[in-house]
Amino acid sequence: MTAHIDRQYEEELSDLRRRILEMGGLVERQIADAVKALVGKDAALAEATIRKDHAVNRLDVEIDELCIRLLALRQPAASDLRVITTALKITTDLERIGDRAASIAERALELLGEPQLKPYVDIPRMAEIASEMLRGSLDAFVRNDVELALEVCRKDDAVDKLNDQIFRELLSFMIEQPATITRAMRVLFVSKYLERIADHATNIAEMVIFMVKGKSIRHIDELPTSV
Amino acid sequence: MTAHIDRQYEEELSDLRRRILEMGGLVERQIADAVKALVGKDAALAEATIRKDHAVNRLDVEIDELCIRLLALRQPAASDLRVITTALKITTDLERIGDRAASIAERALELLGEPQLKPYVDIPRMAEIASEMLRGSLDAFVRNDVELALEVCRKDDAVDKLNDQIFRELLSFMIEQPATITRAMRVLFVSKYLERIADHATNIAEMVIFMVKGKSIRHIDELPTSV
Repeated sequence: MTAHIDRQYEEELSDLRRRILEMGGLVERQIADAVKALVGKDAALAEATIRKDHAVNRLDVEIDELCIRLLALRQPAASDLRVITTALKITTDLERIGDRAASIAERALELLGEPQLKPYVDIPRMAEIASEMLRGSLDAFVRNDVELALEVCRKDDAVDKLNDQIFRELLSFMIEQPATITRAMRVLFVSKYLERIADHATNIAEMVIFMVKGKSIRHIDELPTSV
Repeated sequence: MTAHIDRQYEEELSDLRRRILEMGGLVERQIADAVKALVGKDAALAEATIRKDHAVNRLDVEIDELCIRLLALRQPAASDLRVITTALKITTDLERIGDRAASIAERALELLGEPQLKPYVDIPRMAEIASEMLRGSLDAFVRNDVELALEVCRKDDAVDKLNDQIFRELLSFMIEQPATITRAMRVLFVSKYLERIADHATNIAEMVIFMVKGKSIRHIDELPTSV
């Protein structure tokens, strides 16, 4: 490979990492806006969040195309190959996170006109942890940082626990006051979507560990403290 | 490429398609067993279905490795490249379908000891359509069959409608008889999981269309009648 092609190739790989971060930034913003719309009963923000899904979807297609182009033209070596195939899989998770954020915004719209069950405390907390996990998983990807990826995986438990707690709380609301059932169900779905978002971030982190270490911690029941 | 290497490469590509079908067959069986365990209140079958998830997860890792090996050693041409990158993305969806099937089996276990709300009619129907969609999407993948893939996408509406119908029905149960809330919620989750399984099959079908046509129908709001 000549120095010129070599440099161009390096730039394309950096571009790939940059675009993954860009897509991650977009969906992170989507999550924050969807939850802000829910808490602030902001219809315009909820609608804008749903519309923004198009930008995420466009990036999804563009990044996939960039990966295929890199694979076709550059015949990447082993470690770069794992970066590119991981990027291909990460876009799927990011796209689905965007879908879940749009679903939160939809539930926010439905909940707008109804009296609020109770102050939103755990939902914003869950959203915060899920967003941290998302950011951590993508930083781990661009930096090949296994330690950071493991940290993301470990946070998933906190989100699962919050989700269980919200579930139990809303269940008692529903049982004691059946008039709240429809509202409580919508809030419960929001909690579920956030739990799914954290799962997607965990998936990304696991793929990063696989990418760096060349071995899978996906599908191992006990999470290792180091790999 | 010599004839020998050429033949070996063709065999590896066939092996890739075969393993995708194998993984698809496993998760299809998982869905069928999970729903059978639910309807038949069969604890042993539910537990076996949850355990079987390991086999699915092992195939997931093996197929990803096969894809990376093919990309590294064979420098595949454009159309084969799209087959391999699509396979990489399909395994993620299949693995998540397996997770959802295991979740159905978990809800089946929880529902075992409780009196049944009503006969299961719509849930098995949903499972049937979702499994058809899954089978169709993978057949479309191995045969490069765009028509079949479009057919899968069109079926997603029927599943969404069944899910909405189940949701409304269970909501009235809960409102009229708050004592049924916990049970009704569990059934509602099963319905949600099946709807997600159909979504994964739709995602696979959309990726197959992208693979064959080189253009994306993901993220187009109106589904084309032909592409």
